[in-house]
Amino acid sequence: MRKPKIVVLGAGYGGLMTVTRLQKSLGVNEADIVLVNKNDYHYETTWLHEASAGTLSPDRVRYPVSDVIDKNKVDFVQDSVVEIKTDENTVILENGQADYDYLVVALGGESETFGIKGLKEHAFTISNVNTSRQLREHIEYQFATYHNEEEKKDERLTIVVGGAGFTGIEFLGELTNRVPELCKEFDVDYHKVRIICVEAAPMVLPGFDPELVTYAVSVLEKKGVEFKIGTAIKEATPEGIIVGKGEDEVEEIKAGTVVWAAGVRGNSVIEKSGIEAMRGRVKVDPNLRVPGHENIFVIGDSSLVINEEINRPYPPTAQIAMQQGVTVAKNLSALIRHQEGLESFVFDNKGTVCSLGEDDAIGVVFGKKVKGAKASFMKKMVDNRALFMVGGVGLTLKKGKFKFF
Amino acid sequence: MRKPKIVVLGAGYGGLMTVTRLQKSLGVNEADIVLVNKNDYHYETTWLHEASAGTLSPDRVRYPVSDVIDKNKVDFVQDSVVEIKTDENTVILENGQADYDYLVVALGGESETFGIKGLKEHAFTISNVNTSRQLREHIEYQFATYHNEEEKKDERLTIVVGGAGFTGIEFLGELTNRVPELCKEFDVDYHKVRIICVEAAPMVLPGFDPELVTYAVSVLEKKGVEFKIGTAIKEATPEGIIVGKGEDEVEEIKAGTVVWAAGVRGNSVIEKSGIEAMRGRVKVDPNLRVPGHENIFVIGDSSLVINEEINRPYPPTAQIAMQQGVTVAKNLSALIRHQEGLESFVFDNKGTVCSLGEDDAIGVVFGKKVKGAKASFMKKMVDNRALFMVGGVGLTLKKGKFKFF
Repeated sequence: MRKPKIVVLGAGYGGLMTVTRLQKSLGVNEADIVLVNKNDYHYETTWLHEASAGTLSPDRVRYPVSDVIDKNKVDFVQDSVVEIKTDENTVILENGQADYDYLVVALGGESETFGIKGLKEHAFTISNVNTSRQLREHIEYQFATYHNEEEKKDERLTIVVGGAGFTGIEFLGELTNRVPELCKEFDVDYHKVRIICVEAAPMVLPGFDPELVTYAVSVLEKKGVEFKIGTAIKEATPEGIIVGKGEDEVEEIKAGTVVWAAGVRGNSVIEKSGIEAMRGRVKVDPNLRVPGHENIFVIGDSSLVINEEINRPYPPTAQIAMQQGVTVAKNLSALIRHQEGLESFVFDNKGTVCSLGEDDAIGVVFGKKVKGAKASFMKKMVDNRALFMVGGVGLTLKKGKFKFF
Repeated sequence: MRKPKIVVLGAGYGGLMTVTRLQKSLGVNEADIVLVNKNDYHYETTWLHEASAGTLSPDRVRYPVSDVIDKNKVDFVQDSVVEIKTDENTVILENGQADYDYLVVALGGESETFGIKGLKEHAFTISNVNTSRQLREHIEYQFATYHNEEEKKDERLTIVVGGAGFTGIEFLGELTNRVPELCKEFDVDYHKVRIICVEAAPMVLPGFDPELVTYAVSVLEKKGVEFKIGTAIKEATPEGIIVGKGEDEVEEIKAGTVVWAAGVRGNSVIEKSGIEAMRGRVKVDPNLRVPGHENIFVIGDSSLVINEEINRPYPPTAQIAMQQGVTVAKNLSALIRHQEGLESFVFDNKGTVCSLGEDDAIGVVFGKKVKGAKASFMKKMVDNRALFMVGGVGLTLKKGKFKFF
């Protein structure tokens, strides 16, 4: 009898959670499991703001996929996904293809520029290890160049962060810690550096508790951030950005660095494969399957699950992706063993902590509001928990965040 | 009675040697000593190839001027020199001026591009802390950018070093050590990196012992350097360089980084001040004074002293600058004390060691040829000796190069 073949696309939070759970629950003879990922490493998307600001080495935010998979049960294929041929049950890869009986799409999200002119060309993003390293090096290069120009250009030292959502705020928290170090390293006067956060929405961290948001804004303002809220970026240029000002006016903000941290969408492979989606996100059924494709699961940033309480989609987070991975692994085991009744996915929101730098954070954990050092400690525990869930004690000790006093 | 005023311009090897000797030999009541320097720190010009390649932190190659001057005897002025008004015995600074009775010009050299088109705009130099930091950051940015482009440009990973003289070779030695680290850090295939040394002269390290040069070339070639000797750079462009090939042909070498390490000239302040010079270097009298200006001494890279044995100028080095500083300090003391007979400068060549990276070097020390680990050790001793001469044991222990096994 031919063993069913499970192909998992992506070694992010959702994909790795699925695979590590599957390799525990399924015997070698029950299924073939294939994991496809572009890189031979997993990276912590939720730590990228640190690598981008330069407060954490890029190597600290990743670990080899081989560290957490059981080679006896899982075949790892390092390749990029081009398209899913749903009618042929196969995935076209850049250097081959992968046939499947069951498919788990966990390819992660992509940066969304909403068609704003020049953003793709002139703005950096905090999307993966490569973009984060480039952003860090770009900022360092701006500081290193400052003293080498006959006519000093202070705008080299201006950093614009587009977006006051989770990524933008966490990046600002790290950046404001990093800038004094950069000033020291490159002999730059701290007062010449400007950090500007531009947000089109009328508020910072929409959806967060207002009291905590006020705290976060005041912490970041004290650390030197200028907030321009309710201000839309009209265009990014080689010299900076152009923002809307009032009804018809525009204003130019010259900046050596523009970071776009505002938009996330689902993976474009979804659309390329003809799967119905909204901005790359698939409204999955209660079992996390694609409507009309019973053998395809979508989890993580490319999936869309409605929060019934407020009738809005849950925002894409590591937490929800990992919980989805657990559910999918259970459902796949059930399908393969021909057991009745698949599990419906219910998101168990344990809370959210938004970092404001090394020692500060805000959050709601198990329904309680926290801020300051306590929240920062909880944030590190959240980060460590993701490691523990995927790789157990060993991985947590190896890559975890521990602060020794 | 008015105290004579000695103004020393520049806190490089020559200037600091002059000042530290003067503050030892002269009493507080004998003279006013003023040291003028652009930065509040001294940097080790002979270590800049390490900071430029990224094998040594830029902070390791410098120390505060205040660490070595006696504040009771020396006034330190942080300012840039614009022009020397020799007929008015005054120095125009960017933010003031400094009158003198005796002047020591120790302003250091400048990069010389020999009018080669585009070099000033598109090539990096290893001239000071600022240019070295920028070069290091630029190279890192090229590596960081490589994986972020849809169409990978291998030329981003090509580094052209113009010049196979001392600076070029020492930089290549460090760079070939650094590149494997960069490849690891940025996930770049080592075989895609090209390091090309282009030299117009028909040989590497002209003036060096041919056996040692052969050793150096073979070491660097093994570490991946391609030498293009007898090849002149015709032009530097935003994409790389154009070199002469045969009689009339030219060849383009695409490179993400072009380093110009070939030309050194004297300081342009010399010419701006109407002092007779050849490429900014003043042919000083035996007492190191400017002919026709008995109260102005010039030492270091802007001075020109003939090696009588071969009837050619000594190349500008830290060694000769420091020895000149010792002579000038003696002569100034004699002048101030109205003693007879100034000392003539005689260069005592203790040897030269050219580094080929962390653990390798070639050199001639006290007339003996050395290479490999032994030469590398001697190089570090040479570096430490410069620290010791200026700042004694304390500075040497603080900033010296010690390798512990």
